[in-house]
Amino acid sequence: METGKFITLEGTEGVGKTTNRQFIQEYLESRGIPLCVTREPGGTPLAEEVRELLLAKRDEQVDEQAELLLVFAARAQHLNQVILPALKRGEWVLCDRFTDATYAYQGAGRGLSLTTIEALEELVQGDLRPDLTVVLDIDVETGLARAGERGSLDRFESEAVEFFQRVRAGYQQRVASDPQRYAVVDAGQSLEGVQRDIKSVLDNLLAAS
Amino acid sequence: METGKFITLEGTEGVGKTTNRQFIQEYLESRGIPLCVTREPGGTPLAEEVRELLLAKRDEQVDEQAELLLVFAARAQHLNQVILPALKRGEWVLCDRFTDATYAYQGAGRGLSLTTIEALEELVQGDLRPDLTVVLDIDVETGLARAGERGSLDRFESEAVEFFQRVRAGYQQRVASDPQRYAVVDAGQSLEGVQRDIKSVLDNLLAAS
Repeated sequence: METGKFITLEGTEGVGKTTNRQFIQEYLESRGIPLCVTREPGGTPLAEEVRELLLAKRDEQVDEQAELLLVFAARAQHLNQVILPALKRGEWVLCDRFTDATYAYQGAGRGLSLTTIEALEELVQGDLRPDLTVVLDIDVETGLARAGERGSLDRFESEAVEFFQRVRAGYQQRVASDPQRYAVVDAGQSLEGVQRDIKSVLDNLLAAS
Repeated sequence: METGKFITLEGTEGVGKTTNRQFIQEYLESRGIPLCVTREPGGTPLAEEVRELLLAKRDEQVDEQAELLLVFAARAQHLNQVILPALKRGEWVLCDRFTDATYAYQGAGRGLSLTTIEALEELVQGDLRPDLTVVLDIDVETGLARAGERGSLDRFESEAVEFFQRVRAGYQQRVASDPQRYAVVDAGQSLEGVQRDIKSVLDNLLAAS
């Protein structure tokens, strides 16, 4: 059965995910692709409630394994209620963050076991993986300065610079492990440059489908 | 290092968990046992928020794997923030529901893989298991009739009779697998009878510690 393509968008804070998600959406729609645009953690009412639990700053120390399990709980809900049905209808899915973010933030960032993350990925996703993952890459200080202009920071955005350096390295490791699936885009260049690079990646995927 | 004892209280709807939890608490306190009384899902502010997500009735269909992961996320938080610190301080912990409820409700009730539940139990708990699990047992119809008197039902309480029959059988299977750890108490008898039986179980544990 023909299913849609599954595209995910990744990157550390301040790389311009929101702007470029909008660009990808408009470009694919201009090419006549039926598209479901969504995000993680979240994407369903229940999963968005889990997102709020995850992002809230709180006095209570959040156990790292609890955080990881909340991320995959939201993912199971999102996948089964939204992503898989859309792909089966033949729509393409554009998702702002997915499991690569878990490897980068909870794995590389928090230092949780990659084997545990792999086991949960297998449990929740089976063999579903994105067809294309666009990683917007920028040096951490520049990204954080950009993100800081947005005002109040959530529990993740409040982490130290070293955390985001580990997250960025985590993304780079993911890319190195499967260069075929990932497209790294330099998010430090002009927006025109970023979107020219993204367009070229999308054109390749469109040509292949 | 000497740690406290870990006691859990289990059973289907309407078995009298709240009343008998209170009885166990008062009895142990009367014997001079330093006690931490808590419950699952819940037991910390974050875990109680997850409990609300789990119990809320909603239009959205809740994915069974998402439910299972939410349960273990709350458990990881509760275990690391409350239960393990209390046991290490030498307190006893009395917990209203724990992982046996996951085997009974999500495993036997929903039909989720017991192997998956075992893997998550191992991930979150390592080799920690309760020292004593009191299972209050009653025939399902009687229990539901009692629970129904409490007014509005949550998402679990709203399940059909057959669901609770599977849950009860799930508890019985757990007991059969490790009779040493479990004490089944007939919750269909008079409250005096129930509490005489519970007291005798607690006396055994006190004598052994």
